[in-house]
Amino acid sequence: MLEQSTRSERGSMTGEEARRAVREGRLSCQTSSLAPGYVQGNLVVLPQDIAGDFLRFCQRNPKPCPIIGMTEPGDPHIPDLGVDLDLRTDLPGYRVWRDGELVEEPGDLLSHWRDDLVGFVIGCSFSFEEALLADGLEVRNVAEGVNVSMFRTSIPCAPAGPFAGPVVVTMRPFSPADAIRAIQITSRFPSVHGAPIHIGQPEQIGIRDLSKPDYGDPVAIRDGELPVFWACGVTPQAVIAAARPPFAITHAPGAMLVTDLKNSRLSIL
Amino acid sequence: MLEQSTRSERGSMTGEEARRAVREGRLSCQTSSLAPGYVQGNLVVLPQDIAGDFLRFCQRNPKPCPIIGMTEPGDPHIPDLGVDLDLRTDLPGYRVWRDGELVEEPGDLLSHWRDDLVGFVIGCSFSFEEALLADGLEVRNVAEGVNVSMFRTSIPCAPAGPFAGPVVVTMRPFSPADAIRAIQITSRFPSVHGAPIHIGQPEQIGIRDLSKPDYGDPVAIRDGELPVFWACGVTPQAVIAAARPPFAITHAPGAMLVTDLKNSRLSIL
Repeated sequence: MLEQSTRSERGSMTGEEARRAVREGRLSCQTSSLAPGYVQGNLVVLPQDIAGDFLRFCQRNPKPCPIIGMTEPGDPHIPDLGVDLDLRTDLPGYRVWRDGELVEEPGDLLSHWRDDLVGFVIGCSFSFEEALLADGLEVRNVAEGVNVSMFRTSIPCAPAGPFAGPVVVTMRPFSPADAIRAIQITSRFPSVHGAPIHIGQPEQIGIRDLSKPDYGDPVAIRDGELPVFWACGVTPQAVIAAARPPFAITHAPGAMLVTDLKNSRLSIL
Repeated sequence: MLEQSTRSERGSMTGEEARRAVREGRLSCQTSSLAPGYVQGNLVVLPQDIAGDFLRFCQRNPKPCPIIGMTEPGDPHIPDLGVDLDLRTDLPGYRVWRDGELVEEPGDLLSHWRDDLVGFVIGCSFSFEEALLADGLEVRNVAEGVNVSMFRTSIPCAPAGPFAGPVVVTMRPFSPADAIRAIQITSRFPSVHGAPIHIGQPEQIGIRDLSKPDYGDPVAIRDGELPVFWACGVTPQAVIAAARPPFAITHAPGAMLVTDLKNSRLSIL
């Protein structure tokens, strides 16, 4: 689905170059492997009258919902994430929701943006996966070239206004020694889900079958490996879908916002 | 077994006061709960001709054998651990070994010390247990008032000279969330065994029955808890016993050296 750019260009772009390519229609589809090293984020856009409840929801649930940037009402820009950044044009695809129903999948938001909309950018596990890979760990979904396995858990989020629902987690299997290392590494990234919230014992958090994820793809779990579970940015999307707000916009699956922040700068140590 | 000191005195002593009480015969037996907040260490004393091999063994196996202090040959003092500290008198009990056989359990080393002896003080998990407890985690062996469970594993130490053998581990059970927290906390203490070396899956490291520790006491493991395994300072003692050196001295079980170092100062973060 690359249009006027090659794979090697994707892998050497800066965040700003990636956004420009998206904005100019030279790049569509997924942002995975685009502009390595730069933070990518999930997008949530809500009308101002419920954006306050959603902000409070994220504040109460920082592990699944780490906000890395948000707009002023009506302003589609977030200069802290990129001077030129425009939420209306800089993602490869969007989903527009009315009363909880998907009504449109536009390529930009130029005709959808409104003066009362507030945009939220929520951290994603791409950032810490890069650190795991850099440490030499095998991240199974990356090794298998598939989407990470995601599961709804029995762990409730702390509710706020209409927003409530279970924590969604990603699962990556590791040998016990690598699981310990993965905990150490991801603990350094509290703003992108941070340390795992669970390890082993999937039934304790309401997961019955690791081979049947609720979102994403199944991955192989080898003998002696432990499943390790991180809070996931799909949580707020599932919560918004359940809350059925009159109007909402999210990124299309896999079509994230690429920012100017470096993943390495999110590390607290 | 307290002699001229009460339990409350034990719990309010500094490291220096604790050593003085031991030296003056006012305190015998175990050093557990003595001088809280101060680093305690395992003692190993070897003749100079094999001390170099042992030092190399520790250097190659820093997780089970973290050296926090060592003497010049013949000098029983380690000023870095305490200005007045004297390895000959400051531990409540000692064990003297000849050719791998326990031959004597003296109360001091005044008549055993020699000009060719080198003393090693090796960090112990008391230091990180204090940090786990301070964080509100339940450390099962402390809660049950028993010695920690220890197991010989199938993981070989890196050998050096005559010193070789398996890594010995301590095991503490935790809920999955508490296990993740315990990994974070103990990662901050690399000089006292640091992060666990294994989690869950005891059979992977050659442990068949968690209710039958090779050293120490069994502890209850509740439904849904994971066993978490840390490298243990008993490793060098087991290795020395197996190497059967002509002469060696160790601390008596539970009768550790109390230093002037604060546990909290061992934290790297």
